[in-house]
Amino acid sequence: MTLHQINPNVSVDCAIFSFDQGALEVLLIERHAGNSEIKDDLMALPGNLIYEDETLDEAANRVLSELTGLTNIFLEQVYTFGNPNRISKQKDLDWLRAIRASPEARVITVAYTSLVKKENFKIQPSSFAKKAVWVKVKDVPHLAFDHNEILDKALDYLKHKIYLEPLGYELLPDKFTLAQLQKLYEAILEDSFDKRNFRRKILRTEFIVKLDEKQQGVAHKPAGLYRFDKSRFHKI
Amino acid sequence: MTLHQINPNVSVDCAIFSFDQGALEVLLIERHAGNSEIKDDLMALPGNLIYEDETLDEAANRVLSELTGLTNIFLEQVYTFGNPNRISKQKDLDWLRAIRASPEARVITVAYTSLVKKENFKIQPSSFAKKAVWVKVKDVPHLAFDHNEILDKALDYLKHKIYLEPLGYELLPDKFTLAQLQKLYEAILEDSFDKRNFRRKILRTEFIVKLDEKQQGVAHKPAGLYRFDKSRFHKI
Repeated sequence: MTLHQINPNVSVDCAIFSFDQGALEVLLIERHAGNSEIKDDLMALPGNLIYEDETLDEAANRVLSELTGLTNIFLEQVYTFGNPNRISKQKDLDWLRAIRASPEARVITVAYTSLVKKENFKIQPSSFAKKAVWVKVKDVPHLAFDHNEILDKALDYLKHKIYLEPLGYELLPDKFTLAQLQKLYEAILEDSFDKRNFRRKILRTEFIVKLDEKQQGVAHKPAGLYRFDKSRFHKI
Repeated sequence: MTLHQINPNVSVDCAIFSFDQGALEVLLIERHAGNSEIKDDLMALPGNLIYEDETLDEAANRVLSELTGLTNIFLEQVYTFGNPNRISKQKDLDWLRAIRASPEARVITVAYTSLVKKENFKIQPSSFAKKAVWVKVKDVPHLAFDHNEILDKALDYLKHKIYLEPLGYELLPDKFTLAQLQKLYEAILEDSFDKRNFRRKILRTEFIVKLDEKQQGVAHKPAGLYRFDKSRFHKI
Protein backbone atom coordinates (compact mmCIF):
# COMPACT_ATOMS: atom_id res chain seq x y z
CA MET A 1 0.00 0.00 0.00
CA THR A 2 1.39 3.38 -1.05
CA LEU A 3 1.22 6.21 1.45
CA HIS A 4 -0.12 9.40 -0.01
CA GLN A 5 0.50 12.87 1.32
CA ILE A 6 -2.77 14.59 2.14
CA ASN A 7 -3.47 18.21 1.19
CA PRO A 8 -5.02 19.67 4.37
CA ASN A 9 -6.61 22.63 2.53
CA VAL A 10 -8.56 21.05 -0.32
CA SER A 11 -11.33 18.47 -0.33
CA VAL A 12 -13.88 17.07 -2.77
CA ASP A 13 -17.57 16.35 -2.10
CA CYS A 14 -19.92 14.34 -4.30
CA ALA A 15 -23.65 14.85 -4.85
CA ILE A 16 -24.77 11.65 -6.59
CA PHE A 17 -28.36 11.58 -7.77
CA SER A 18 -30.69 8.78 -8.70
CA PHE A 19 -34.38 8.61 -9.60
CA ASP A 20 -36.71 6.11 -8.00
CA GLN A 21 -40.50 5.88 -8.07
CA GLY A 22 -40.94 9.41 -9.30
CA ALA A 23 -38.57 11.00 -6.78
CA LEU A 24 -35.06 12.36 -7.05
CA GLU A 25 -32.68 10.85 -4.50
CA VAL A 26 -29.19 11.72 -3.29
CA LEU A 27 -26.54 9.45 -1.78
CA LEU A 28 -25.62 10.39 1.81
CA ILE A 29 -23.30 8.86 4.36
CA GLU A 30 -23.40 8.53 8.11
CA ARG A 31 -19.97 9.22 9.58
CA HIS A 32 -18.21 7.48 12.39
CA ALA A 33 -15.25 8.88 14.26
CA GLY A 34 -12.91 5.95 14.78
CA ASN A 35 -12.38 5.14 18.46
CA SER A 36 -13.66 8.49 19.62
CA GLU A 37 -16.85 8.65 21.66
CA ILE A 38 -18.24 11.83 20.12
CA LYS A 39 -21.88 11.82 19.22
CA ASP A 40 -22.24 12.54 15.53
CA ASP A 41 -25.68 12.23 14.06
CA LEU A 42 -25.17 14.50 11.05
CA MET A 43 -25.39 12.93 7.62
CA ALA A 44 -23.07 14.21 4.90
CA LEU A 45 -22.31 14.08 1.21
CA PRO A 46 -19.46 11.64 0.57
CA GLY A 47 -16.28 13.74 0.61
CA ASN A 48 -12.74 13.94 1.93
CA LEU A 49 -9.36 15.68 1.57
CA ILE A 50 -7.41 15.21 -1.67
CA TYR A 51 -4.00 13.60 -2.02
CA GLU A 52 -1.11 15.79 -3.18
CA ASP A 53 -0.39 13.50 -6.14
CA GLU A 54 -3.85 13.22 -7.69
CA THR A 55 -6.00 15.54 -9.81
CA LEU A 56 -9.31 16.85 -8.46
CA ASP A 57 -11.23 14.46 -10.74
CA GLU A 58 -9.15 11.52 -9.50
CA ALA A 59 -9.72 12.60 -5.91
CA ALA A 60 -13.49 12.76 -6.41
CA ASN A 61 -13.56 9.27 -7.90
CA ARG A 62 -11.33 7.80 -5.19
CA VAL A 63 -13.19 9.41 -2.29
CA LEU A 64 -16.60 8.39 -3.63
CA SER A 65 -15.38 4.85 -4.13
CA GLU A 66 -13.74 4.62 -0.69
CA LEU A 67 -16.80 5.87 1.16
CA THR A 68 -19.64 4.30 -0.80
CA GLY A 69 -18.26 1.59 -3.07
CA LEU A 70 -19.46 3.41 -6.22
CA THR A 71 -16.82 3.15 -8.95
CA ASN A 72 -16.54 4.14 -12.61
CA ILE A 73 -18.94 7.03 -12.23
CA PHE A 74 -18.82 9.94 -14.68
CA LEU A 75 -18.36 12.82 -12.25
CA GLU A 76 -18.73 16.44 -13.28
CA GLN A 77 -17.39 19.39 -11.36
CA VAL A 78 -20.13 21.74 -10.18
CA TYR A 79 -18.71 24.50 -8.00
CA THR A 80 -16.07 25.24 -5.37
CA PHE A 81 -17.00 26.32 -1.86
CA GLY A 82 -14.52 28.34 0.14
CA ASN A 83 -16.25 30.26 2.86
CA PRO A 84 -13.70 30.65 5.70
CA ASN A 85 -16.46 29.69 8.16
CA ARG A 86 -17.81 26.66 6.34
CA ILE A 87 -16.56 24.38 9.13
CA SER A 88 -17.96 26.11 12.17
CA LYS A 89 -20.66 23.88 13.63
CA GLN A 90 -19.60 22.30 16.94
CA LYS A 91 -20.48 18.79 15.78
CA ASP A 92 -18.35 19.22 12.66
CA LEU A 93 -15.41 20.53 14.68
CA ASP A 94 -15.67 17.64 17.13
CA TRP A 95 -15.75 15.16 14.31
CA LEU A 96 -12.80 16.76 12.52
CA ARG A 97 -10.74 16.74 15.73
CA ALA A 98 -11.43 13.04 16.11
CA ILE A 99 -10.45 12.12 12.57
CA ARG A 100 -8.07 14.65 10.97
CA ALA A 101 -4.41 15.52 11.42
CA SER A 102 -5.03 19.28 10.95
CA PRO A 103 -8.62 19.70 12.13
CA GLU A 104 -8.37 23.50 12.29
CA ALA A 105 -7.09 24.01 8.73
CA ARG A 106 -9.32 25.95 6.40
CA VAL A 107 -10.72 23.58 3.78
CA ILE A 108 -11.89 24.64 0.34
CA THR A 109 -14.06 21.96 -1.23
CA VAL A 110 -14.67 21.18 -4.89
CA ALA A 111 -18.15 19.75 -5.48
CA TYR A 112 -18.83 17.04 -8.07
CA THR A 113 -22.07 15.54 -9.25
CA SER A 114 -23.35 12.58 -11.23
CA LEU A 115 -26.60 10.94 -12.21
CA VAL A 116 -26.76 7.17 -11.84
CA LYS A 117 -29.21 4.33 -12.10
CA LYS A 118 -28.95 3.07 -8.56
CA GLU A 119 -29.87 -0.50 -9.40
CA ASN A 120 -26.55 -0.74 -11.31
CA PHE A 121 -24.47 -0.14 -8.17
CA LYS A 122 -23.95 -1.99 -4.94
CA ILE A 123 -23.36 0.32 -2.00
CA GLN A 124 -20.43 -0.70 0.17
CA PRO A 125 -19.66 1.89 2.84
CA SER A 126 -16.18 1.92 4.33
CA SER A 127 -13.47 4.33 5.56
CA PHE A 128 -15.26 6.77 7.88
CA ALA A 129 -18.69 6.02 6.39
CA LYS A 130 -20.74 3.89 8.77
CA LYS A 131 -23.53 3.71 6.23
CA ALA A 132 -24.33 5.04 2.77
CA VAL A 133 -27.99 5.48 1.90
CA TRP A 134 -30.19 6.93 -0.83
CA VAL A 135 -32.36 9.70 0.60
CA LYS A 136 -35.18 11.49 -1.24
CA VAL A 137 -33.98 15.03 -1.97
CA LYS A 138 -37.12 16.48 -0.41
CA ASP A 139 -36.43 14.52 2.82
CA VAL A 140 -32.76 15.50 3.18
CA PRO A 141 -32.07 16.58 6.80
CA HIS A 142 -29.72 19.25 8.09
CA LEU A 143 -26.33 18.03 6.84
CA ALA A 144 -22.74 18.36 8.04
CA PHE A 145 -20.62 21.41 7.12
CA ASP A 146 -22.15 23.42 4.23
CA HIS A 147 -23.41 20.28 2.52
CA ASN A 148 -26.99 21.51 2.23
CA GLU A 149 -25.65 24.47 0.26
CA ILE A 150 -23.56 22.16 -1.91
CA LEU A 151 -26.60 19.96 -2.54
CA ASP A 152 -28.65 23.03 -3.56
CA LYS A 153 -25.94 24.10 -5.99
CA ALA A 154 -25.81 20.62 -7.52
CA LEU A 155 -29.60 20.72 -7.94
CA ASP A 156 -29.33 24.13 -9.64
CA TYR A 157 -26.71 22.64 -11.93
CA LEU A 158 -29.14 19.85 -12.91
CA LYS A 159 -31.89 22.41 -13.55
CA HIS A 160 -29.68 24.29 -15.98
CA LYS A 161 -28.34 21.15 -17.53
CA ILE A 162 -31.73 19.64 -18.28
CA TYR A 163 -32.25 22.43 -20.84
CA LEU A 164 -28.99 21.60 -22.57
CA GLU A 165 -28.78 17.82 -22.43
CA PRO A 166 -31.07 14.80 -22.41
CA LEU A 167 -30.44 14.20 -18.72
CA GLY A 168 -33.08 11.53 -18.40
CA TYR A 169 -30.77 9.26 -20.35
CA GLU A 170 -28.77 8.61 -17.20
CA LEU A 171 -31.74 8.27 -14.87
CA LEU A 172 -34.49 6.45 -16.73
CA PRO A 173 -34.57 2.88 -18.05
CA ASP A 174 -33.60 2.57 -21.74
CA LYS A 175 -37.29 2.41 -22.67
CA PHE A 176 -39.64 4.65 -20.77
CA THR A 177 -43.10 6.16 -20.89
CA LEU A 178 -43.81 9.87 -21.30
CA ALA A 179 -45.37 9.81 -17.82
CA GLN A 180 -42.04 8.64 -16.37
CA LEU A 181 -40.18 11.32 -18.31
CA GLN A 182 -42.57 14.01 -17.10
CA LYS A 183 -42.09 12.89 -13.47
CA LEU A 184 -38.34 13.18 -13.92
CA TYR A 185 -38.56 16.72 -15.32
CA GLU A 186 -40.96 17.67 -12.55
CA ALA A 187 -38.64 16.22 -9.89
CA ILE A 188 -35.57 18.05 -11.20
CA LEU A 189 -37.30 21.34 -11.96
CA GLU A 190 -39.45 21.17 -8.79
CA ASP A 191 -42.49 22.09 -10.78
CA SER A 192 -45.56 20.40 -12.18
CA PHE A 193 -46.58 20.54 -15.82
CA ASP A 194 -49.75 20.15 -17.76
CA LYS A 195 -49.59 16.68 -19.32
CA ARG A 196 -50.60 17.74 -22.82
CA ASN A 197 -48.26 20.75 -22.91
CA PHE A 198 -45.34 18.72 -21.63
CA ARG A 199 -45.83 16.04 -24.30
CA ARG A 200 -46.15 18.54 -27.09
CA LYS A 201 -42.99 20.39 -26.06
CA ILE A 202 -40.83 17.38 -25.32
CA LEU A 203 -41.74 15.62 -28.57
CA ARG A 204 -40.95 18.80 -30.49
CA THR A 205 -37.33 18.58 -29.29
CA GLU A 206 -36.92 15.48 -31.49
CA PHE A 207 -34.52 13.70 -29.14
CA ILE A 208 -37.28 11.45 -27.85
CA VAL A 209 -38.07 8.62 -30.25
CA LYS A 210 -41.33 6.66 -30.14
CA LEU A 211 -40.83 2.90 -30.23
CA ASP A 212 -43.20 0.42 -31.74
CA GLU A 213 -43.70 -1.12 -28.29
CA LYS A 214 -45.96 -0.72 -25.31
CA GLN A 215 -45.63 -1.36 -21.58
CA GLN A 216 -46.20 -4.97 -20.52
CA GLY A 217 -47.80 -6.42 -17.41
CA VAL A 218 -49.49 -3.28 -16.20
CA ALA A 219 -53.03 -3.18 -14.82
CA HIS A 220 -53.99 -0.03 -16.70
CA LYS A 221 -54.05 0.57 -20.43
CA PRO A 222 -50.38 0.06 -21.47
CA ALA A 223 -48.60 3.28 -22.44
CA GLY A 224 -46.32 3.66 -25.46
CA LEU A 225 -42.58 3.37 -24.88
CA TYR A 226 -39.93 5.88 -25.95
CA ARG A 227 -36.16 6.09 -26.00
CA PHE A 228 -33.61 8.91 -26.14
CA ASP A 229 -31.70 9.64 -29.31
CA LYS A 230 -28.56 11.38 -28.07
CA SER A 231 -27.26 11.95 -31.58
CA ARG A 232 -30.26 14.13 -32.37
CA PHE A 233 -29.78 16.09 -29.18
CA HIS A 234 -26.23 17.07 -30.00
CA LYS A 235 -27.34 18.46 -33.33
CA ILE A 236 -29.78 20.90 -31.80
CA MET B 1 -2.57 48.30 6.77
CA THR B 2 -3.79 44.92 7.99
CA LEU B 3 -1.58 41.96 7.37
CA HIS B 4 -3.42 39.00 5.92
CA GLN B 5 -2.31 35.42 6.16
CA ILE B 6 -1.94 33.89 2.72
CA ASN B 7 -3.23 30.41 1.88
CA PRO B 8 -0.35 28.87 -0.08
CA ASN B 9 -2.54 26.17 -1.69
CA VAL B 10 -5.43 28.09 -3.23
CA SER B 11 -5.52 30.87 -5.80
CA VAL B 12 -8.06 32.62 -8.00
CA ASP B 13 -7.69 33.58 -11.67
CA CYS B 14 -9.95 35.91 -13.65
CA ALA B 15 -10.87 35.73 -17.35
CA ILE B 16 -12.46 39.12 -18.05
CA PHE B 17 -13.97 39.54 -21.51
CA SER B 18 -14.89 42.56 -23.53
CA PHE B 19 -16.13 43.07 -27.08
CA ASP B 20 -14.56 45.61 -29.38
CA GLN B 21 -14.96 46.15 -33.11
CA GLY B 22 -16.49 42.74 -33.66
CA ALA B 23 -13.89 40.82 -31.69
CA LEU B 24 -13.94 39.21 -28.27
CA GLU B 25 -11.06 40.36 -26.06
CA VAL B 26 -9.60 39.15 -22.77
CA LEU B 27 -7.70 41.10 -20.14
CA LEU B 28 -4.11 39.85 -19.64
CA ILE B 29 -1.25 41.01 -17.48
CA GLU B 30 2.50 41.10 -17.93
CA ARG B 31 4.21 40.05 -14.72
CA HIS B 32 7.30 41.44 -13.11
CA ALA B 33 9.34 39.68 -10.49
CA GLY B 34 10.29 42.35 -8.01
CA ASN B 35 14.05 42.85 -7.80
CA SER B 36 14.81 39.55 -9.44
CA GLU B 37 16.56 39.49 -12.80
CA ILE B 38 14.64 36.55 -14.25
CA LYS B 39 13.39 36.90 -17.76
CA ASP B 40 9.64 36.50 -17.80
CA ASP B 41 7.88 37.16 -21.06
CA LEU B 42 4.78 35.08 -20.41
CA MET B 43 1.49 36.90 -20.17
CA ALA B 44 -1.09 35.64 -17.69
CA LEU B 45 -4.67 35.98 -16.56
CA PRO B 46 -4.85 38.23 -13.50
CA GLY B 47 -4.67 35.89 -10.49
CA ASN B 48 -3.04 35.33 -7.12
CA LEU B 49 -3.23 33.36 -3.84
CA ILE B 50 -6.21 33.89 -1.55
CA TYR B 51 -6.11 35.26 2.00
CA GLU B 52 -7.16 32.95 4.82
CA ASP B 53 -9.87 35.36 5.99
CA GLU B 54 -11.71 36.03 2.73
CA THR B 55 -14.18 34.04 0.65
CA LEU B 56 -13.27 32.90 -2.87
CA ASP B 57 -15.54 35.57 -4.38
CA GLU B 58 -13.89 38.24 -2.25
CA ALA B 59 -10.45 36.98 -3.25
CA ALA B 60 -11.32 37.13 -6.94
CA ASN B 61 -12.53 40.72 -6.62
CA ARG B 62 -9.53 41.81 -4.58
CA VAL B 63 -6.95 40.16 -6.83
CA LEU B 64 -8.52 41.53 -10.00
CA SER B 65 -8.63 44.99 -8.50
CA GLU B 66 -5.05 44.84 -7.19
CA LEU B 67 -3.60 43.70 -10.51
CA THR B 68 -5.69 45.62 -13.03
CA GLY B 69 -7.61 48.37 -11.22
CA LEU B 70 -10.99 46.88 -12.24
CA THR B 71 -13.43 47.11 -9.33
CA ASN B 72 -17.11 46.38 -8.76
CA ILE B 73 -17.17 43.64 -11.38
CA PHE B 74 -19.80 40.92 -11.21
CA LEU B 75 -17.56 37.85 -11.22
CA GLU B 76 -18.90 34.35 -11.72
CA GLN B 77 -17.09 31.18 -10.78
CA VAL B 78 -16.35 28.96 -13.79
CA TYR B 79 -14.27 25.95 -12.78
CA THR B 80 -11.48 24.85 -10.47
CA PHE B 81 -8.17 23.60 -11.81
CA GLY B 82 -6.09 21.27 -9.69
CA ASN B 83 -3.70 19.30 -11.82
CA PRO B 84 -0.69 18.51 -9.60
CA ASN B 85 1.57 19.51 -12.52
CA ARG B 86 -0.13 22.76 -13.45
CA ILE B 87 2.92 24.73 -12.34
CA SER B 88 5.67 22.91 -14.15
CA LYS B 89 7.03 25.24 -16.83
CA GLN B 90 10.53 26.47 -16.01
CA LYS B 91 9.58 30.12 -16.51
CA ASP B 92 6.67 29.77 -14.12
CA LEU B 93 8.84 28.09 -11.51
CA ASP B 94 11.48 30.82 -11.81
CA TRP B 95 8.86 33.49 -11.42
CA LEU B 96 7.23 31.80 -8.41
CA ARG B 97 10.62 31.43 -6.70
CA ALA B 98 11.21 35.13 -7.17
CA ILE B 99 7.87 36.21 -5.78
CA ARG B 100 6.32 33.62 -3.44
CA ALA B 101 7.05 32.44 0.10
CA SER B 102 6.22 28.78 -0.74
CA PRO B 103 7.03 28.55 -4.44
CA GLU B 104 6.91 24.75 -4.48
CA ALA B 105 3.46 24.41 -2.88
CA ARG B 106 0.80 22.80 -4.99
CA VAL B 107 -1.76 25.46 -5.97
CA ILE B 108 -5.37 24.73 -6.85
CA THR B 109 -6.92 27.66 -8.67
CA VAL B 110 -10.55 28.75 -8.85
CA ALA B 111 -11.36 30.48 -12.15
CA TYR B 112 -13.78 33.39 -12.38
CA THR B 113 -15.15 35.22 -15.38
CA SER B 114 -16.99 38.38 -16.26
CA LEU B 115 -18.17 40.36 -19.27
CA VAL B 116 -17.53 44.08 -19.20
CA LYS B 117 -17.81 47.11 -21.42
CA LYS B 118 -14.19 48.09 -21.43
CA GLU B 119 -14.84 51.78 -21.99
CA ASN B 120 -16.39 51.89 -18.50
CA PHE B 121 -13.13 50.93 -16.79
CA LYS B 122 -9.72 52.50 -16.46
CA ILE B 123 -6.93 49.96 -16.33
CA GLN B 124 -4.42 50.59 -13.55
CA PRO B 125 -1.92 47.76 -13.23
CA SER B 126 -0.10 47.36 -9.94
CA SER B 127 1.21 44.71 -7.52
CA PHE B 128 3.16 42.25 -9.70
CA ALA B 129 1.40 43.34 -12.89
CA LYS B 130 3.74 45.45 -15.02
CA LYS B 131 0.98 46.03 -17.54
CA ALA B 132 -2.63 45.00 -18.08
CA VAL B 133 -3.87 44.89 -21.66
CA TRP B 134 -6.90 43.83 -23.69
CA VAL B 135 -5.88 41.13 -26.17
CA LYS B 136 -8.10 39.70 -28.91
CA VAL B 137 -8.99 36.14 -27.89
CA LYS B 138 -7.84 34.83 -31.24
CA ASP B 139 -4.42 36.49 -30.76
CA VAL B 140 -3.79 35.21 -27.22
CA PRO B 141 -0.23 33.84 -26.98
CA HIS B 142 1.07 30.91 -24.96
CA LEU B 143 0.23 31.95 -21.38
CA ALA B 144 1.73 31.26 -17.95
CA PHE B 145 0.79 28.12 -15.98
CA ASP B 146 -2.38 26.45 -17.34
CA HIS B 147 -3.94 29.79 -18.20
CA ASN B 148 -4.66 28.85 -21.82
CA GLU B 149 -6.71 25.94 -20.50
CA ILE B 150 -8.51 28.24 -18.04
CA LEU B 151 -9.25 30.70 -20.85
CA ASP B 152 -10.67 27.87 -22.98
CA LYS B 153 -12.92 26.76 -20.13
CA ALA B 154 -14.16 30.32 -19.61
CA LEU B 155 -14.95 30.55 -23.34
CA ASP B 156 -16.86 27.25 -23.13
CA TYR B 157 -18.77 28.69 -20.21
CA LEU B 158 -19.75 31.70 -22.34
CA LYS B 159 -20.84 29.41 -25.16
CA HIS B 160 -23.20 27.57 -22.86
CA LYS B 161 -24.38 30.70 -21.17
CA ILE B 162 -25.31 32.49 -24.37
CA TYR B 163 -28.11 29.94 -24.82
CA LEU B 164 -29.47 30.64 -21.37
CA GLU B 165 -29.03 34.38 -20.92
CA PRO B 166 -28.99 37.56 -23.01
CA LEU B 167 -25.21 37.84 -22.72
CA GLY B 168 -24.97 40.67 -25.17
CA TYR B 169 -26.53 42.87 -22.56
CA GLU B 170 -23.16 43.14 -20.81
CA LEU B 171 -21.11 43.54 -23.97
CA LEU B 172 -23.05 45.70 -26.41
CA PRO B 173 -24.12 49.32 -26.12
CA ASP B 174 -27.67 49.78 -24.82
CA LYS B 175 -28.89 50.30 -28.36
CA PHE B 176 -27.37 48.10 -31.04
CA THR B 177 -27.91 46.84 -34.57
CA LEU B 178 -28.64 43.24 -35.47
CA ALA B 179 -25.32 43.19 -37.34
CA GLN B 180 -23.51 44.01 -34.08
CA LEU B 181 -25.47 41.35 -32.25
CA GLN B 182 -24.67 38.76 -34.91
CA LYS B 183 -20.96 39.58 -34.69
CA LEU B 184 -21.09 39.07 -30.94
CA TYR B 185 -22.76 35.66 -31.25
CA GLU B 186 -20.29 34.69 -33.97
CA ALA B 187 -17.34 35.78 -31.81
CA ILE B 188 -18.51 33.84 -28.75
CA LEU B 189 -19.67 30.74 -30.61
CA GLU B 190 -16.69 30.84 -33.02
CA ASP B 191 -18.99 30.26 -35.92
CA SER B 192 -20.54 32.27 -38.73
CA PHE B 193 -24.23 32.44 -39.42
CA ASP B 194 -26.40 33.19 -42.38
CA LYS B 195 -27.69 36.73 -41.87
CA ARG B 196 -31.31 35.98 -42.60
CA ASN B 197 -31.44 32.84 -40.46
CA PHE B 198 -29.76 34.56 -37.55
CA ARG B 199 -32.24 37.43 -37.61
CA ARG B 200 -35.23 35.16 -37.86
CA LYS B 201 -34.08 33.03 -34.92
CA ILE B 202 -32.94 35.81 -32.63
CA LEU B 203 -36.12 37.83 -33.14
CA ARG B 204 -38.18 34.73 -32.39
CA THR B 205 -36.68 34.64 -28.87
CA GLU B 206 -38.59 37.85 -28.07
CA PHE B 207 -35.93 39.28 -25.78
CA ILE B 208 -34.71 41.64 -28.49
CA VAL B 209 -36.95 44.67 -28.88
CA LYS B 210 -36.97 46.84 -32.00
CA LEU B 211 -36.73 50.54 -31.26
CA ASP B 212 -38.27 53.29 -33.31
CA GLU B 213 -34.76 54.63 -34.02
CA LYS B 214 -32.04 54.19 -36.59
CA GLN B 215 -28.26 54.53 -36.56
CA GLN B 216 -26.99 58.08 -36.96
CA GLY B 217 -23.95 59.44 -38.74
CA VAL B 218 -23.10 56.34 -40.76
CA ALA B 219 -22.04 56.40 -44.39
CA HIS B 220 -24.22 53.45 -45.39
CA LYS B 221 -27.97 53.13 -45.14
CA PRO B 222 -28.69 53.43 -41.39
CA ALA B 223 -29.72 50.19 -39.74
CA GLY B 224 -32.53 49.86 -37.19
CA LEU B 225 -31.62 49.86 -33.51
CA TYR B 226 -32.63 47.25 -30.95
CA ARG B 227 -32.38 46.77 -27.19
CA PHE B 228 -32.50 43.79 -24.85
CA ASP B 229 -35.53 43.15 -22.70
CA LYS B 230 -34.17 41.11 -19.81
CA SER B 231 -37.59 40.70 -18.22
CA ARG B 232 -38.78 38.79 -21.26
CA PHE B 233 -35.72 36.61 -21.23
CA HIS B 234 -36.26 35.45 -17.69
CA LYS B 235 -39.78 34.40 -18.52
CA ILE B 236 -38.68 32.00 -21.24
